[in-house]
Amino acid sequence: MKNPFENLDKALEHRVRLQIMSVLVTHDGFEFNALKEVLNITDGNLASHIKALEREKYLTVSKSFVEKKPNTKYKITERGRTAFKKHLDALEAVVKQQK
Amino acid sequence: MKNPFENLDKALEHRVRLQIMSVLVTHDGFEFNALKEVLNITDGNLASHIKALEREKYLTVSKSFVEKKPNTKYKITERGRTAFKKHLDALEAVVKQQK
Repeated sequence: MKNPFENLDKALEHRVRLQIMSVLVTHDGFEFNALKEVLNITDGNLASHIKALEREKYLTVSKSFVEKKPNTKYKITERGRTAFKKHLDALEAVVKQQK
Repeated sequence: MKNPFENLDKALEHRVRLQIMSVLVTHDGFEFNALKEVLNITDGNLASHIKALEREKYLTVSKSFVEKKPNTKYKITERGRTAFKKHLDALEAVVKQQK
């Protein structure tokens, strides 16, 4: 039996990571505070999940200043896009197998 | 916008927990060692996820002796069955929203 669970991406299991990726996949760059607001989570929580996704090279971080304020933006990478798509396919397969 | 991420069950996010539930939902009781073999994970790993699911009252544990050997069996509860179904529905909605 083919096992769709094996295709699930450990780095994308957490709900917050799925949400981050779903925002980044449809936006060309997204800012830390905006992301925090969309996800409605704390700085620390968001930062730790961002770090994990950065470690996987699923997103890139760019820091700049906008009107003298620090501005941190995240962009999904091609690797991230592929991994997210694969993970969604695996989730779909898991759901289908159960229903 | 309705947010399907909010319906994801934190206690069922992990791949191993999804797999445990998918086995229990289709079997009337499943033994520890058999589960370990199906999932191909270590004792400790399985035990910790089982404990988490037991804490949520998603499964019950029964211990007995079979031919003088200790035998530990797990059964999904109605609460677990409902939660698993709800989580799968949420996953389905997440996938649909992305595609």
